[in-house]
Amino acid sequence: MSKYTLFTPGPVDIPEDILHETAQKAVYHREAQFAELYRATSEGLKHILGTSGRLFLFASSGTGAMEAACSNILSSSDEPVAAICGKFGQRWLELCQAYKITPVVVQEEYGCCIKPETIEAVLKQKTKPTIVFTTLTETSTGALNDIRVFGEITKKYGAFLVVDGVAGIGADRCPQDEWHVDIMVGASQKALMSPPGISFIAVSERAYEKTKKSDLPTYYFNLAIYEKFRSKQQTPWTPAINVLYGLNKGISKIVKMGLDENYAHHRDVAEYVRERVKNMGLETLARRPSNALTVVKMPANLTSTDIITELKEKHGILFANGQAELRGKIIRIGHMGDYTIEKMRPALDALEHIIRG
Amino acid sequence: MSKYTLFTPGPVDIPEDILHETAQKAVYHREAQFAELYRATSEGLKHILGTSGRLFLFASSGTGAMEAACSNILSSSDEPVAAICGKFGQRWLELCQAYKITPVVVQEEYGCCIKPETIEAVLKQKTKPTIVFTTLTETSTGALNDIRVFGEITKKYGAFLVVDGVAGIGADRCPQDEWHVDIMVGASQKALMSPPGISFIAVSERAYEKTKKSDLPTYYFNLAIYEKFRSKQQTPWTPAINVLYGLNKGISKIVKMGLDENYAHHRDVAEYVRERVKNMGLETLARRPSNALTVVKMPANLTSTDIITELKEKHGILFANGQAELRGKIIRIGHMGDYTIEKMRPALDALEHIIRG
Repeated sequence: MSKYTLFTPGPVDIPEDILHETAQKAVYHREAQFAELYRATSEGLKHILGTSGRLFLFASSGTGAMEAACSNILSSSDEPVAAICGKFGQRWLELCQAYKITPVVVQEEYGCCIKPETIEAVLKQKTKPTIVFTTLTETSTGALNDIRVFGEITKKYGAFLVVDGVAGIGADRCPQDEWHVDIMVGASQKALMSPPGISFIAVSERAYEKTKKSDLPTYYFNLAIYEKFRSKQQTPWTPAINVLYGLNKGISKIVKMGLDENYAHHRDVAEYVRERVKNMGLETLARRPSNALTVVKMPANLTSTDIITELKEKHGILFANGQAELRGKIIRIGHMGDYTIEKMRPALDALEHIIRG
Repeated sequence: MSKYTLFTPGPVDIPEDILHETAQKAVYHREAQFAELYRATSEGLKHILGTSGRLFLFASSGTGAMEAACSNILSSSDEPVAAICGKFGQRWLELCQAYKITPVVVQEEYGCCIKPETIEAVLKQKTKPTIVFTTLTETSTGALNDIRVFGEITKKYGAFLVVDGVAGIGADRCPQDEWHVDIMVGASQKALMSPPGISFIAVSERAYEKTKKSDLPTYYFNLAIYEKFRSKQQTPWTPAINVLYGLNKGISKIVKMGLDENYAHHRDVAEYVRERVKNMGLETLARRPSNALTVVKMPANLTSTDIITELKEKHGILFANGQAELRGKIIRIGHMGDYTIEKMRPALDALEHIIRG
């Protein structure tokens, strides 16, 4: 059906062997075969995340897992911090507001990263431990936040650190336990190379303890309900079984390659893309760029909407446009997951051809 | 991977052509190709549901769509009614309670249907229009509620009727608009023959108007956010694109067969199963049985757990056990979706062989 190859920052171009894996007959989710699939997927994922925490798998998009994190860790009396530098960071603010909680907002311009010292300045003034919501890889701008330093600061002030890693996990290294991340949020359709439909959160013990005291209403994403089934290697509600086949395959490919090798590969591809666009005379939007995607600013005389359409229609290459106020002004090039320099080259050649007119 | 054929009441044995469909490369969900997939799926589904209402598609299991219905239509001051005759009806009660709302409970024994007159007696006493939550096909018992009559009653009292049709849609006829159902809840993995991972609600105009006044916290399932994207034939969050390929295929197969033909086929298969188990000297649990599944009571000297294990291990046939207090006491035989008399026969032969010892 698809008439183009995806170079979008999620969903990604899913490898054929993973697609093939998803097309198996479903097992029954109350049976031993499912428990084994659940166990293998969870173990591999926790290895990639670098955590020994509790992993919860949801049938939802990444936003669902963000809501799970938010609605389980927060209580109505909490005064959290939303550290935002793009559209996906903004989602944390909207989530808090949906639950009638008003966070302190730490905001940076699109393209910038959140400054650790700004977070520290806020935490210093808090009279009780709080919760900091932020983003690893901001898909709207390509910026990579310095989660390692954020983790040092939140630890120092006894705060909880909740990170949207949806676009970064598997592409940008962020070892959860080592970097003191209390909740890491992810999804299947980015660097884990699988179809969309599964999301997850990995929760530290202290964060899990805090979720027990939450007074916010939750059901589909209620962790206490999930926990009862997690111990049986099941989910309380029918899981996205076929997507899980794919996710397990994607994870096992990364584990087999080795984490260091995998991150080095992502860095190499990302550096190649950045070098190519620089040689076209273009600038990247992010000063501290992610290895998951590259976001390129358009010169004043060009609109990305036209370029994206031409690349799609003439070359079968799909890049993503900017969102909201950035629409027409940037091109977002995804290279998380199954992308190589050889695969990026013709796509960038085609872009260069248009740019050079 | 699966070592058995599913005769479970969801997930079902997915036809090969639908699995094949899901294994295509994903399209990008902000592109015209996705909008066309969304449009085709929605139109087919609305035809099956018999509604001209607003259809919202979620990446979640059916329980997520139940939460969407509940949290969008209710406000904290509402005094709804939960009409329950099994484990899935119970879920409506739990959902209301999660949002700190205490419904009036109308409860029937497992295996029975909810009596319309009991619902009417409750509505008669209400001083303002209320919301009745109930179940079309109760998967825990195989009972089919008389939604047509419920709809006449709720209409008479100006109440809203919200129906969990997850297990029934496509197997048990329930024309939404004709029967005055305000919100119909469904999912991909039952009679629609697709992998699990997509759920949906179809909402009448008056129910949609009521959702606008809700004061309950929602985000991932917030209908106002979904509505903005529905008009573009998109979803606000990344949809389960590959599952949607399958769902679209499953729906188009039903539409092509014709609804009357499809329901007649389900009735024929169900009658065959009921006749067979009756001839084995077994009783069905439900007095008013669904055509989606047949739930069989075990004689006192047999436990279903042993029989299910033997059928799975020796014959590669998987029936489902009872849930909670019914575990060991019943066998649940799914025949919603891609099942025929020819496919049921060897499974029932094997069951008969064990029963007759």
